[in-house]
Amino acid sequence: MGGVKIAVSGKGGAGKTTLAAALIRAYAATHRRVYAVDADPDASLALALGIPPETAVEIRPVVDLREQMRRVMGGEGEFFALNPPLGEVLDEFCFRLGNILLIRMGELKKGGTSCYCRENAFLNAVLTALLLERDEVVVMDMPAGIEHLSRGTARGVDVLLVVAEPNQRSIHTGRLVEGLAADLGIPRVAVVGNKIQSPEDGALVRTAFPGRVLALLPFDRAAYRGEGDLGVEFVAAVAGIKEMLDKERVS
Amino acid sequence: MGGVKIAVSGKGGAGKTTLAAALIRAYAATHRRVYAVDADPDASLALALGIPPETAVEIRPVVDLREQMRRVMGGEGEFFALNPPLGEVLDEFCFRLGNILLIRMGELKKGGTSCYCRENAFLNAVLTALLLERDEVVVMDMPAGIEHLSRGTARGVDVLLVVAEPNQRSIHTGRLVEGLAADLGIPRVAVVGNKIQSPEDGALVRTAFPGRVLALLPFDRAAYRGEGDLGVEFVAAVAGIKEMLDKERVS
Repeated sequence: MGGVKIAVSGKGGAGKTTLAAALIRAYAATHRRVYAVDADPDASLALALGIPPETAVEIRPVVDLREQMRRVMGGEGEFFALNPPLGEVLDEFCFRLGNILLIRMGELKKGGTSCYCRENAFLNAVLTALLLERDEVVVMDMPAGIEHLSRGTARGVDVLLVVAEPNQRSIHTGRLVEGLAADLGIPRVAVVGNKIQSPEDGALVRTAFPGRVLALLPFDRAAYRGEGDLGVEFVAAVAGIKEMLDKERVS
Repeated sequence: MGGVKIAVSGKGGAGKTTLAAALIRAYAATHRRVYAVDADPDASLALALGIPPETAVEIRPVVDLREQMRRVMGGEGEFFALNPPLGEVLDEFCFRLGNILLIRMGELKKGGTSCYCRENAFLNAVLTALLLERDEVVVMDMPAGIEHLSRGTARGVDVLLVVAEPNQRSIHTGRLVEGLAADLGIPRVAVVGNKIQSPEDGALVRTAFPGRVLALLPFDRAAYRGEGDLGVEFVAAVAGIKEMLDKERVS
């Protein structure tokens, strides 16, 4: 079973993180190793994977790795992308949860005058290492702006799942994400309806994205509350998504 | 009636944009002019203010104004902050909806190698003009990372409202926002519980933020669907928030 690189995006609150976490668990059951990338500063992929809040806040963001790399190798910028040790150091850096390797991208540092360019170049190199130089399973939880993805790294994304709730703003943001994905040249983009509570909810999403809806997920109370286990219906629907993606890759 | 600068933040989907839009309407009823700043790339403040989607997507982001300023004045970077014409040009640039002046900050441009520093400096100058150099009402809809706010511009924010739903992830993000706000030195930070459907929901939010909850807002179906008018209960609760903030400013 080869690698697949999946990005999950959509409006905040639509359920990106819940879907990403459920997909990660599904792949972790069938693959030796799964990279889970939390690229949304607003998300809590760690919590959704069952890591307690007090541990989650301690997970170092990958921007911190730049300092570490610089100390070891003295390099900078583009240099990282070409250098095999980045991949090795990255694995050491990940937070491990069984065979899930969690990577928190972290926010770009703020402040009046400092330059983000070097941090950006570094994060870009990390994504290049993950998306373009490896044959592994990578699931990325991303903000609606699909920040972090450049034209270069987007080439490594096999499929972008756009999560949309049955409401107008979520649909609006979903369409914007589709547009951004097209601009970046992502080959496969599909919509996943979430928090579906009635046939009308499903129809609303299908009508908004004609022919582009891969699956509909039911409203899940545990997912909403952020407490307890996901319902069997929800988990089964996500397993169905994995199956469809696997089939597409084979055919 | 003097100016007040309000920032609204919280986890995506918690209801930042709905609260911001309702506050903007409330202030527009009592003040000559209200600046509505959409600083969340994931948000749709324009839609929440009733602007149709096809018009909303056409609203130019303020980063575009930089080009315009440069053509007119030939300046760059810090220069803008010191130059009164920025304020004047800004008013011309706003999208007008009655006495509401809508400003879309816009996302920083992406791409492999370009430098964001100048665009950042420009956006910072725009916020300085709005927050520090004027005595007007400004309501800003911001992402959870309170991006755009630097230590400097944060001095101009009178109150940050952190919107939280009655669930663990929304509460987790709300606490992170409180921490960021403290780091930035924002003088007044208060929590607004949203989508409250039962006394238990309210208790969950109050227990999570002891003594820091300014108000609880009911679940509003129109707000969730992004269709139709907000319910009277919701509008009344937001009017209550405005009243509390006005009183705090007087005393």
